[in-house]
Amino acid sequence: MLLQGTMRVNDAGHLVIGDCDTVELAREFGTPLYVLDEQTFRAKCRAYYQAFTAKTNADVIYAGKSLLTLAICRLVEEEGLCLDVVSGGELFTAIKAGFPMSRIYFHGNNKSVEELLMGIEAGIHRFIVDNIRELYLLQNLASQKGRQVDILLRLTPGIEAHTHDYIKTGQIDSKFGLAIATGQAMEGVREALRLTNIRLRGLHCHIGSQIFELEPYADAARILLQFAREAKDATGWEIEELNLGGGLGIYYAEGDRPPEIADLAETIIPAVHKYAREFSLPVPKILVEPGRSIAGPSGITLYTVGTIKTIPGIRTYVSVDGGMTDNLRPALYGARYEACVANKMHMPSSHTVSLAGKCCESGDMLIWDIIMPPLEPDDIIAVPSTGAYTYTMASNYNRIPRPAMITVLNGQAELILKRESYDDLIRNDIIPERLMRKVTTEASK
Amino acid sequence: MLLQGTMRVNDAGHLVIGDCDTVELAREFGTPLYVLDEQTFRAKCRAYYQAFTAKTNADVIYAGKSLLTLAICRLVEEEGLCLDVVSGGELFTAIKAGFPMSRIYFHGNNKSVEELLMGIEAGIHRFIVDNIRELYLLQNLASQKGRQVDILLRLTPGIEAHTHDYIKTGQIDSKFGLAIATGQAMEGVREALRLTNIRLRGLHCHIGSQIFELEPYADAARILLQFAREAKDATGWEIEELNLGGGLGIYYAEGDRPPEIADLAETIIPAVHKYAREFSLPVPKILVEPGRSIAGPSGITLYTVGTIKTIPGIRTYVSVDGGMTDNLRPALYGARYEACVANKMHMPSSHTVSLAGKCCESGDMLIWDIIMPPLEPDDIIAVPSTGAYTYTMASNYNRIPRPAMITVLNGQAELILKRESYDDLIRNDIIPERLMRKVTTEASK
Repeated sequence: MLLQGTMRVNDAGHLVIGDCDTVELAREFGTPLYVLDEQTFRAKCRAYYQAFTAKTNADVIYAGKSLLTLAICRLVEEEGLCLDVVSGGELFTAIKAGFPMSRIYFHGNNKSVEELLMGIEAGIHRFIVDNIRELYLLQNLASQKGRQVDILLRLTPGIEAHTHDYIKTGQIDSKFGLAIATGQAMEGVREALRLTNIRLRGLHCHIGSQIFELEPYADAARILLQFAREAKDATGWEIEELNLGGGLGIYYAEGDRPPEIADLAETIIPAVHKYAREFSLPVPKILVEPGRSIAGPSGITLYTVGTIKTIPGIRTYVSVDGGMTDNLRPALYGARYEACVANKMHMPSSHTVSLAGKCCESGDMLIWDIIMPPLEPDDIIAVPSTGAYTYTMASNYNRIPRPAMITVLNGQAELILKRESYDDLIRNDIIPERLMRKVTTEASK
Repeated sequence: MLLQGTMRVNDAGHLVIGDCDTVELAREFGTPLYVLDEQTFRAKCRAYYQAFTAKTNADVIYAGKSLLTLAICRLVEEEGLCLDVVSGGELFTAIKAGFPMSRIYFHGNNKSVEELLMGIEAGIHRFIVDNIRELYLLQNLASQKGRQVDILLRLTPGIEAHTHDYIKTGQIDSKFGLAIATGQAMEGVREALRLTNIRLRGLHCHIGSQIFELEPYADAARILLQFAREAKDATGWEIEELNLGGGLGIYYAEGDRPPEIADLAETIIPAVHKYAREFSLPVPKILVEPGRSIAGPSGITLYTVGTIKTIPGIRTYVSVDGGMTDNLRPALYGARYEACVANKMHMPSSHTVSLAGKCCESGDMLIWDIIMPPLEPDDIIAVPSTGAYTYTMASNYNRIPRPAMITVLNGQAELILKRESYDDLIRNDIIPERLMRKVTTEASK
């Protein structure tokens, strides 16, 4: 297993992260436990900041949908990044964390009137407008409120980056954005320019997720700037900002070879400069929206081993105390992960096992066929690369409470998300009066 | 679209359920909205009760993992069914609803010590023991508490019912149960009999989910009773209870032809009697564990249409205000659903559209290529057969609050689950002191 970030092994043969012994973390905070390696999270933020903002006219916008809590907002702000929210709930979180609204970008293919209004009233920086209806809604609401709103238009450039089907977003057949090829993107520009409370600042596209190739980003820059040229010719509008979205892949398991953040910048920045020149446009401000590549490698999940079941000649199932409720990605995408036994890092791996979750569902498997040291109940399993799209997608399936999350940094562990309680699970349940249990004994009258 | 349960269309051309106009429900309670047709839910419970408990020595055990809230517990109890819980959280819910512990069955492939203890202390009726380790844990805990616990042993009979890969559970290569074929089932019986605080009452198997064929249930009865015979010969133990699990399929979309509940009973009851005779065993009490076939057809979900995007020559995407956060099944299993426009039931279907969710994820599609009347924003979409495995698997992905749920019955609508608030989303978030925003102005000192 690849030791990422601050992960190392101590003399006791325990996995250590952020200078904290994971076996002790499991004991102190219980399992399943999301552990955020704060140094790595901050280092990834800084790598983006250094590669883009420090080098050129650019902003880095952290994609909240990968992992967002109040504390995460604080980290993102402290590192000088902007924040991409995709719902009223994410915006609410940012507001409650005191995140500066001047650094908020608001995404979504189907923002509600309430959400748009919330964004306008909060005075967020940019709406990434997905479609024509949103333009009109935004115009009406902004006009009612006497505000001007700044927007980028989300376009579909017709690029399909190599990735899992479910997370392709650049192709024309997409619920997101306005296609350049169909003329709808140009219609969007014309309408935006016509609307008096809308200021069209730039263009956006997002070509996919967990991408290992950099060329598609340069292609996207070319396609959007060529479109910007056509838009200028047609309307006189000049692009100020070019948002190339997120999608940089990370290391999940053997065979994954993600590019460096610096390489992404060294692809995007020259490409934008080159194509701006080529299409005789001013060089726009560059925006990128990393989520997974910041949060993903920064998180590990700790589990405790329970049932171990060897079916002779077939398979050994090792059940842990979490699973698809805290990490849906294996079940949903067939995602692969590595794992290790946090309390047996010095023991050689010798047994092939499959890690099962605790849900009453056969599909609740975390990792099939992984070679591990001999396992016993109460061993601690660590699954790296679980910072992104785990907690955010967590459920209470089987009424399993969602795990706690901690940050670890220089030997200090701090709770940033309390473990859900059983009481939390029934907090919103109501029993109508007529269904109340009848305990009409004499005494109760 | 098939009108199930109490669904009908009123003169205004609106979809009606439980004598409530769904368009008014959407207005009153907001969308997305889970609507439970109480009459249908109760009718399904009664159909099971009539077909099994009223006919023979049998109990019907509602599988809480399909849908469980406090109010659902009350309905299940009123209808005389038992309850299958699969976690401490489900047991907690049952306890808080005042559900009689004498009717609780406790399932799970990896019950924790805390969960087992909770079950023992609550005095639940039966533990469905999944594996040898659980037997020992249960013995130790029961012994500590000076209790006797009654159990069934979960076995894997080696049957694969025709269903989706993810929800097959009868085959030998399974994280669930003890395989008969490997001798582990017999080992489980021997160990259970040896343990002084354990009383082995019977055997359990679950052959899969969303099953349309009844023969596998008769097969399962044969295999388990044959095993019970072998166990009697080997140990003298006599089976008292035979639990054949759940799995009966329901109608989701055209082409689905689920059997009737009565037909399931007329397959299982004679088979159990026949094979008990064949293997010279007393006829055991019959247990079945329906979940989906009770809750599934009883629920519809209401959504409001937002963005409508036609990509010429390719597809029309109609986005609703929910999606994979309230119904994961299309994304997770590729599940198919039907849908209708609740406010346009009299209008002919003429347009092929695809219903998209509001999550920032391409995979968030509810229904591909469905023929509907012409759609406009604010139309109400109803998706039937969404009572089971929707709310239970719901997430806050994109920080989208989970919907409200209501019962409808004879024109009365009542809230049984409050809509999540934005405050609920951050309830467990903590910002460590050192990350608190520094607002150290003179005034704040």
